[in-house]
Amino acid sequence: MINNLTSNYLRLTSVLQIKQANSGHPGVCLGAAPIAFSIYKNAIVNAKDPNFINRDRIVFSAGHASALIYSCLNLFGFDISVEDMKKFRQLGSITTGHPEVNIAPGVDVSTGPLGQGIANAVGLAIAEEYLRNKYAKGNLSPINHYTYCFTGDGCLMEGVAQEAISIAGNLKLNKLILLYDKNDITIEGKLDIANREDVKAKFLSCGWNVLEVFNGNNVEEIDYAISKAQKSDKPTIIIVKTQIGYGSDLAGSHKVHGKPLNEEQVNNLRQNLNYFVPDWKVPEDVAEYVKEINKQKEIQLKKYYLDLEEYKNKFPKLFKEFIELENYSNIDLSSLVLNEEKEVYDGRAEGHSVLNLIGEIVPNLIGGCADVAPSTQMFFDNSEYFNYLNRVGKNIPYGIREHAMAAISNGISLHKGLIAFCSTFFAFANYMTPAIRLSALSKNPVLYLFTHDSISTGEDGPTHQATEQIATLRCMPDIYTFRPVGRNELLAAYQLFFNKKMPLSILLPRQKYNFVKDNFNNALFGGYIISELKNKEATIIATGSEVELAIKAQKILKEKNIFVNVVSMPCVELFDEQTKDYKNKIIDKSKPVFCVEASTDNIWYKYATDENTILKLNSFGVSGKPEHVCSHFGFTAENIAKKVEKYLKNKN
Amino acid sequence: MINNLTSNYLRLTSVLQIKQANSGHPGVCLGAAPIAFSIYKNAIVNAKDPNFINRDRIVFSAGHASALIYSCLNLFGFDISVEDMKKFRQLGSITTGHPEVNIAPGVDVSTGPLGQGIANAVGLAIAEEYLRNKYAKGNLSPINHYTYCFTGDGCLMEGVAQEAISIAGNLKLNKLILLYDKNDITIEGKLDIANREDVKAKFLSCGWNVLEVFNGNNVEEIDYAISKAQKSDKPTIIIVKTQIGYGSDLAGSHKVHGKPLNEEQVNNLRQNLNYFVPDWKVPEDVAEYVKEINKQKEIQLKKYYLDLEEYKNKFPKLFKEFIELENYSNIDLSSLVLNEEKEVYDGRAEGHSVLNLIGEIVPNLIGGCADVAPSTQMFFDNSEYFNYLNRVGKNIPYGIREHAMAAISNGISLHKGLIAFCSTFFAFANYMTPAIRLSALSKNPVLYLFTHDSISTGEDGPTHQATEQIATLRCMPDIYTFRPVGRNELLAAYQLFFNKKMPLSILLPRQKYNFVKDNFNNALFGGYIISELKNKEATIIATGSEVELAIKAQKILKEKNIFVNVVSMPCVELFDEQTKDYKNKIIDKSKPVFCVEASTDNIWYKYATDENTILKLNSFGVSGKPEHVCSHFGFTAENIAKKVEKYLKNKN
Repeated sequence: MINNLTSNYLRLTSVLQIKQANSGHPGVCLGAAPIAFSIYKNAIVNAKDPNFINRDRIVFSAGHASALIYSCLNLFGFDISVEDMKKFRQLGSITTGHPEVNIAPGVDVSTGPLGQGIANAVGLAIAEEYLRNKYAKGNLSPINHYTYCFTGDGCLMEGVAQEAISIAGNLKLNKLILLYDKNDITIEGKLDIANREDVKAKFLSCGWNVLEVFNGNNVEEIDYAISKAQKSDKPTIIIVKTQIGYGSDLAGSHKVHGKPLNEEQVNNLRQNLNYFVPDWKVPEDVAEYVKEINKQKEIQLKKYYLDLEEYKNKFPKLFKEFIELENYSNIDLSSLVLNEEKEVYDGRAEGHSVLNLIGEIVPNLIGGCADVAPSTQMFFDNSEYFNYLNRVGKNIPYGIREHAMAAISNGISLHKGLIAFCSTFFAFANYMTPAIRLSALSKNPVLYLFTHDSISTGEDGPTHQATEQIATLRCMPDIYTFRPVGRNELLAAYQLFFNKKMPLSILLPRQKYNFVKDNFNNALFGGYIISELKNKEATIIATGSEVELAIKAQKILKEKNIFVNVVSMPCVELFDEQTKDYKNKIIDKSKPVFCVEASTDNIWYKYATDENTILKLNSFGVSGKPEHVCSHFGFTAENIAKKVEKYLKNKN
Repeated sequence: MINNLTSNYLRLTSVLQIKQANSGHPGVCLGAAPIAFSIYKNAIVNAKDPNFINRDRIVFSAGHASALIYSCLNLFGFDISVEDMKKFRQLGSITTGHPEVNIAPGVDVSTGPLGQGIANAVGLAIAEEYLRNKYAKGNLSPINHYTYCFTGDGCLMEGVAQEAISIAGNLKLNKLILLYDKNDITIEGKLDIANREDVKAKFLSCGWNVLEVFNGNNVEEIDYAISKAQKSDKPTIIIVKTQIGYGSDLAGSHKVHGKPLNEEQVNNLRQNLNYFVPDWKVPEDVAEYVKEINKQKEIQLKKYYLDLEEYKNKFPKLFKEFIELENYSNIDLSSLVLNEEKEVYDGRAEGHSVLNLIGEIVPNLIGGCADVAPSTQMFFDNSEYFNYLNRVGKNIPYGIREHAMAAISNGISLHKGLIAFCSTFFAFANYMTPAIRLSALSKNPVLYLFTHDSISTGEDGPTHQATEQIATLRCMPDIYTFRPVGRNELLAAYQLFFNKKMPLSILLPRQKYNFVKDNFNNALFGGYIISELKNKEATIIATGSEVELAIKAQKILKEKNIFVNVVSMPCVELFDEQTKDYKNKIIDKSKPVFCVEASTDNIWYKYATDENTILKLNSFGVSGKPEHVCSHFGFTAENIAKKVEKYLKNKN
């Protein structure tokens, strides 16, 4: 009874927000209010301290239920007021169109693009599992919570979700509880137009526990299923049969998905629900009920804090480590700088070495490689796989699931307490783009460690050769793309990551090349003169392995009495941020400026003198030996030198 | 016996290619040779006419089995010689690192990026199903073939494959036969590190027929399973238990996946297989055997051509339509140009109207919308869904599976006889990038019809607002991106598609705006002066909806006696292709050039006078009413006018 009343309150309040904005999704809010209520009822969260580290995590993968989320958060005392709800979807309000982390208190993950949230929840559950076990002492652990995830039919069809579901089953993430709002309707109509899967059988085949609630309006039934799920030794999906747009005139129809109810429809809704409490007002019984629920939660919170105190006293060192997990602000990697000169630079080996060194300094760094660890070499030597037997392994076995890997990394990182990296061939960054975009959008510091960064990947051919990917990433706001020429620039990339706490991609070569003396401190400006000559007539800007070619070209030109500077610009976005003075010091625009990069990037028009001073790649790669492929496209020191010489000759 | 001998021949020949190249993947070639042989044995293909329209299609989703494919194609008489095989993975050879369509005869689809091939095969099977039913008369149809797809463990983990598998089950594509090389090994080691799914149960849950072959070396068993699969009323997966690297010293180990065998290892392989025929030589018995197989196939081919003759005689009109399906070279859309001026331009409504008009002219255009058809409006009014009951519907119900939608579109288009379009919100183009890349790489003319192309998407917020996507697509080679301001430019986009037969993205707005008089013929140059004033002091280049703003800004400036030209540049890549003379005529660089686009694109540095003449979006969007969001980021006519005025004042 009281549960029904609460559900109806949430329904009406959600629909009012949407009506006020004249924009939003009433269908899911009306259909799934009892599920959302049950989640917030059962989840141990702390409205006064929404980022409390041991809170149960709640992910609404169906982010278009945003009005419903805000209704719940408001009801449970989070800092979202009725005024905020009245500004639903308006410019500058915290009640954004889809829920955004760091904007609305109580929102753990930004969602909206379907499927992502399920993978994010898997990441949150991995982080919980790892941290709980890492810091457990007997029955005590500073981390011990559930991860709830709300999903509709849409998310479950997405490949990223399917990948993540398989991973969760393999890893036996038994504290992950997925609540499936099964209304059998999608935007185009009945679900079975596009999907006739046996969802239950599919989840069972992936190693999940499956529970069913046949009456989605029965909050007690959902509560009971949650209590059973909490005891499972596998991840659980609770399939809740609901009706989209429940209570409205359009109940059960796809037409109620994304169209606000008008005045008359809201009145009819009230009639149908038999709910006549004034707009925005919380029914007194509901207020009382929620107060009681919150009281029960406070008892559990108090117990947690007492346990934590005990943990602190008994294991002060571990406790200190735990609370300092996030303090990676004062990390200074300059001590790792190597000044010895080598013959050959092996980018992947150096990448491996540096990752392992960083892993010593930052013990809470974990990640995986989508099944190409032997090739990208991004794994920890002194650790095992994280799996259902070993909960403290730092190498995560993602399998060949790049998209979920990136989305799960978002979840791990958003949990806090852990830093997530993930790695594959750069050409396959494409598979991860939707998740990388959400890292950037959420300013969520995930480390993307890509190798095989150019046509030098060679024999595997154009499908495996990154060409436009660097340009693609540079187009994306709020993420840095770093392509180091050597180990010291690579260290600078990590330093940038720790300084900025923003998502970062590092691009490493497949091929080995001659050692180049690079500079850690200078690389922190994004670009710097790596090789300077007196009386220079021009500047060559290059990135990554092309810096080595540019320096060789510089030597060839020098023998012909043509003097040029070489600028290494591992991170264009970072260089852009520097002062005009600095930029002018590095790039002398009064003389010709050449840009050399094996990519289809348009960014070089910004710095190059004209289109004839850009050596770029305007096509996909080809299959062949790396040196042949590079030569085919003109990426040789000789060709660069020739190009510069010819241009300068024509100019004079 | 003879089957074993043939398998061993294929094994050795594949391993030799890899050894010669010192690059490639012996593991799958040794393990799966019997499967590949069985596929080519059973598939009705025509080595003399590899593109014969009714051939059985063969997709190696595990494209790293390339050496094995070339061995099979050579054996079955395709135009791939021993010399070609000896140049495996070398620059300029047809035996590229991963199989590439249009390069190696007999390769139906370019594969390599895992998972894609399964979705491509689903597309091929959809095309077959549609065309067979569309042209069937009694027992006769010019199309009636199977689609075989070879997959390993890797492809099956990918989300795009999972999406496509679900679609195939829903659509009951019973002529699709998936052969799963189950060796339980991936690059990082044993499969169960990352995957412990019950594959059989999972496929059953998706509505597939599941067959198992327990001895992957037994070609007869595989043949028998194929013969059973051919009679199924559902798509079939044949799970074939194999051993990676069979016969080599590293059999069963992940170490044999991607490392060429050396001389000694090849000798040991010969010993283990008891196979001592000289390198590259086809054993006589095998040659005889294949000859016999080909003879049987020729009988079937002959019967097909006789049936086709009968069809031609009985249904000459239908036959003519069928053989002309691909002739969309002479399509001239100029007759659709509208010269009447309207008040308001509704991009999506016009998109819908034009798609339906084109559908009348080009009856073989089919596609779908990943569940947002009511919103993108890209569907045919006069057609139904393509589904398991209606095989000739032209609207494909992809469900919320953008990635598979794009990859399936690749398959439909590669089949020939059909043109595929697909559609969703532009922000979700990210989900489709790996498949779009393969469209471009294969020069496969798929039509991508995106709507909600900018921050004007408004209330749904930054997750749903396209910002960097246009820049991303422009970075990709071999695909055109077209952002029309009005209906005539939209027609020009389609005209470009039919002229170039290259993949093309069309970007349409969510919002309505004031009608702009655009020009079909001029738009075919990619960019043109859409509004000209005498004594102009500057040029404003804009695209799509920003052209409307620029024209308004032009008016505001005119009232202040500042005269500017407005250039509409719907397709930058196309404009780039024009002559210097044309470009200079359109953009007078002697006067300031402004660029206006609500995107994070770097391309405008190419045309803008300097960074102060670019009005772009350097961040993600925000949630709010469209007009508020645009205003927030300065995308108003007033702000453009102000910017231009200020710049010109400072200059003078």
